[in-house]
Amino acid sequence: MAQSLDGFVARADHRLDWLTSIPTHGDDHGYAAFTATVDGIVMGRGSYNNVLSFGEWPYTKPVIVMSKSLTQRDVPETLTGKVRVTDLEPAPLMKMLADEGWSRAYIDGGLVVQSFIREGLVQDMVLTVAPVMLGEGKRMFGPWGGDVGLELVASTTFKSGMVQLKYRLPASNPEPGA
Amino acid sequence: MAQSLDGFVARADHRLDWLTSIPTHGDDHGYAAFTATVDGIVMGRGSYNNVLSFGEWPYTKPVIVMSKSLTQRDVPETLTGKVRVTDLEPAPLMKMLADEGWSRAYIDGGLVVQSFIREGLVQDMVLTVAPVMLGEGKRMFGPWGGDVGLELVASTTFKSGMVQLKYRLPASNPEPGA
Repeated sequence: MAQSLDGFVARADHRLDWLTSIPTHGDDHGYAAFTATVDGIVMGRGSYNNVLSFGEWPYTKPVIVMSKSLTQRDVPETLTGKVRVTDLEPAPLMKMLADEGWSRAYIDGGLVVQSFIREGLVQDMVLTVAPVMLGEGKRMFGPWGGDVGLELVASTTFKSGMVQLKYRLPASNPEPGA
Repeated sequence: MAQSLDGFVARADHRLDWLTSIPTHGDDHGYAAFTATVDGIVMGRGSYNNVLSFGEWPYTKPVIVMSKSLTQRDVPETLTGKVRVTDLEPAPLMKMLADEGWSRAYIDGGLVVQSFIREGLVQDMVLTVAPVMLGEGKRMFGPWGGDVGLELVASTTFKSGMVQLKYRLPASNPEPGA
């Protein structure tokens, strides 16, 4: 995931122009190498619709869309076998995917990531900090009900000015009342 | 300055326990080396009161306290010659300090830093990101009236898990309506 230095994931109107306008110098910021390590991608309806709007489907790995309103019938035929819709909650979903043989899922999208973190289901978090401050917009993270302590695993600086921070998360949920 | 990964500078009740409880392994995160490069420190009343509450005055460099409510008479005698109170706005204050021979001031404290950034008076920003997410509290930065683009100058990782990001700021004010 990427956030502005002041903690926003998108503008108030969901636009990502501040992010996509940063020259990448042909660097994918480790994205391909990272997605190669996962069995599939889990996202919410918002991210899914956003990706659909790109026109071309960018993922080679299986994608799970978590939604209470979408059903499998809403998925375009061209994406059959590539996209599965589920109304499962995070923990049962992870259990199901583990039963299917997944060992590592890439959880994408602010709200979905937050819910997985709250349930202690995220082991590693890779957050890329963009060299810009927006001042306002959609915050990347919301309240946790307590502190979430992190262990810094790695930090990588890119020519674009992006700084990629990799953290390990605690196995347990945050303790309320910090 | 230091912020949590999710962009907070303090808890809602101003506490910094989340920051001070991170083991530093004896590392000052470059603080002494940094303050050695400045002619003095500019802070707001909130930071000043916070530092006063430490009991021992930690600064060897001159400190300017920006306040409309405090006067020089409010400064304890023990700090005479060390602390100056001013009601000047950022630009005239910087002009005065430059006239006195200052070439580089360390601007501290969330709100004061924000006002200096808004007026295009900050050249370099060093932000240390602590390995913790608070979920709520006092945000480090507020709205700018436009994007503030940054140029990453350096990134340093510490054993504490702190990541120190040094940015160069644009010389001009943010353009509204980004």
